[in-house]
Amino acid sequence: MNIEFIQLAHGSGGSGTAKLIQQIFLPHFHELGLQPENDAALLSLGSKTLAFTIDGFVVEPPFFPGGDLGSLAINGTINDLAVMGAKPLWLACGFIISVGVAGTVLDRIAASMQEAAIAAGVQLVAGDTKVIESQGKSLQILITTAGIGILQTEKPWHTPRVRCGDQLILSGTIGEHTLAVLGARQGWFQDDRITSDCANLYPMLEPLHSLPDIHWVRDLTRGGLGGVCNELAQATGYGVELYEAEIPIDRSVRGWCEILGYDPLYLANEGKALLAVDRRAAAHVLGELQKTALGRHASLVGEISSQQQPLVILNTSVGGRRLVPAPTGELFPRIC
Amino acid sequence: MNIEFIQLAHGSGGSGTAKLIQQIFLPHFHELGLQPENDAALLSLGSKTLAFTIDGFVVEPPFFPGGDLGSLAINGTINDLAVMGAKPLWLACGFIISVGVAGTVLDRIAASMQEAAIAAGVQLVAGDTKVIESQGKSLQILITTAGIGILQTEKPWHTPRVRCGDQLILSGTIGEHTLAVLGARQGWFQDDRITSDCANLYPMLEPLHSLPDIHWVRDLTRGGLGGVCNELAQATGYGVELYEAEIPIDRSVRGWCEILGYDPLYLANEGKALLAVDRRAAAHVLGELQKTALGRHASLVGEISSQQQPLVILNTSVGGRRLVPAPTGELFPRIC
Repeated sequence: MNIEFIQLAHGSGGSGTAKLIQQIFLPHFHELGLQPENDAALLSLGSKTLAFTIDGFVVEPPFFPGGDLGSLAINGTINDLAVMGAKPLWLACGFIISVGVAGTVLDRIAASMQEAAIAAGVQLVAGDTKVIESQGKSLQILITTAGIGILQTEKPWHTPRVRCGDQLILSGTIGEHTLAVLGARQGWFQDDRITSDCANLYPMLEPLHSLPDIHWVRDLTRGGLGGVCNELAQATGYGVELYEAEIPIDRSVRGWCEILGYDPLYLANEGKALLAVDRRAAAHVLGELQKTALGRHASLVGEISSQQQPLVILNTSVGGRRLVPAPTGELFPRIC
Repeated sequence: MNIEFIQLAHGSGGSGTAKLIQQIFLPHFHELGLQPENDAALLSLGSKTLAFTIDGFVVEPPFFPGGDLGSLAINGTINDLAVMGAKPLWLACGFIISVGVAGTVLDRIAASMQEAAIAAGVQLVAGDTKVIESQGKSLQILITTAGIGILQTEKPWHTPRVRCGDQLILSGTIGEHTLAVLGARQGWFQDDRITSDCANLYPMLEPLHSLPDIHWVRDLTRGGLGGVCNELAQATGYGVELYEAEIPIDRSVRGWCEILGYDPLYLANEGKALLAVDRRAAAHVLGELQKTALGRHASLVGEISSQQQPLVILNTSVGGRRLVPAPTGELFPRIC
């Protein structure tokens, strides 16, 4: 273990988080059954398979165009279950609140959670609240949401099923969430409103449950498309090829990324999924996704290469090839 | 809703927390199936009943005589499942860590979690880490642990089953946890070491699974015996009678409470349970508890009165009767 002090980068979802998990958590938790490679753990119970997950939500400011801490804390955990091929059923929320947070702010967040849970048809069955002394000037509400779902697919959509030649389908445009939160924090984009894509992915994924050729699904949160593709490469040992021209990016997002110097590949999303599907089924799956509201801009953006090197390569619009490294450092703190 | 700002008392487990739940959370979460009256929600799944719970752990300092944040974060959630009559099986932990926390501290906490989980035979299957900027001088690790168990008893040990005349059995001495943490924080009790009672209650409760006359079990955490008895009275509408002379309190704890002006009835515990059992079965249940390591000091400490007023009355050692009000305000911040 050579992590001297915890840094923001250890929570980034990139290589810092991987290091924290590898060096501190896995040595202790490996034999306890920790399943760090999946968004949710799979648990056998009688004839059913449960999916079980937990996720912490930290966002500043708590309200931003297109969403807020409350909708994030419901949909984020729902999505971790949905991408395994499970139907989300039950949630439990732990609140950690700083002294001095206004009651009206907490009430608005609870109202947003209610709305998101009702829309998704999930129950919120258990909760807990701790209050901590506020330090410095920042008042905070931290929500940790655990969720239970029931696996609906014959096999879970997880990494052991990924094959060489699998096609990668992205469910829609990338980058809105990070820019919406940073915009709300900094007062940017006054005339060019960018809204978070925060959404429940289950309705988009449910029609795919009966298709046997879906091997793997992951939602693109911290670390973005670039981060998730690197995790996929690391977990499978295969290379990933991405086609830049096929990656859907909103015109405003692209413009602001150029101005601000951000690479949209690393921006976080809260309502997008990446799917690895059998090559022969790719067109059909793409068509199914495009029939849904959230998947209407779905696009075939890459494939699992035959190359046995866990590298992510972007085939650029101008015909070049460049390495997409795993994100390092803290890209954008407190965005999800 | 008339909570203007969140205060420490809203996280105390007493009347402040009740107000927060009543005024902010229940109006939004009631229709989502929130089960605030139990330590764990009960969920039907095929022929089985799952228990599902979540709890946040905030303690300063993170290491104290008899336990630490890690053992607390495992045993606390296990106990919320065990007191419903469930066997704890799977845990998920969300970490929120301040920038600057030493890697060795986090490693020691993870090691303690590992040890507690192995001892309890539970799996830790999912996790999440968020890093927040540290504000002020206090570095923090906040752990939120969700847990799933399977109900083992024919009926859950919960409030609807409590009856007039039920006997109240306390599983052991009260008050050690609060004093151990405050002692470690303040440097008290150098020569008179008081250790936390942090423990897994499941082995003590398991022998009771087949007994039909156990109506209700609760662990005594924040708010202590006085807080839990008031919650029981409020939830059932019955009064609670306690017999002061029968409540086991360690001599050192009693002495320090007198010196410090604390009422041991409100001190938090992390390894004690209160049981409501049918009058005819009380002696047998007490005997079963006393056979176990954790329950060796179990004592019959009160009963559910026939009085239809939800008040808690302490029958004092000198023959008086005094009201034990629900705890208000923040008793002891950041102890569990």
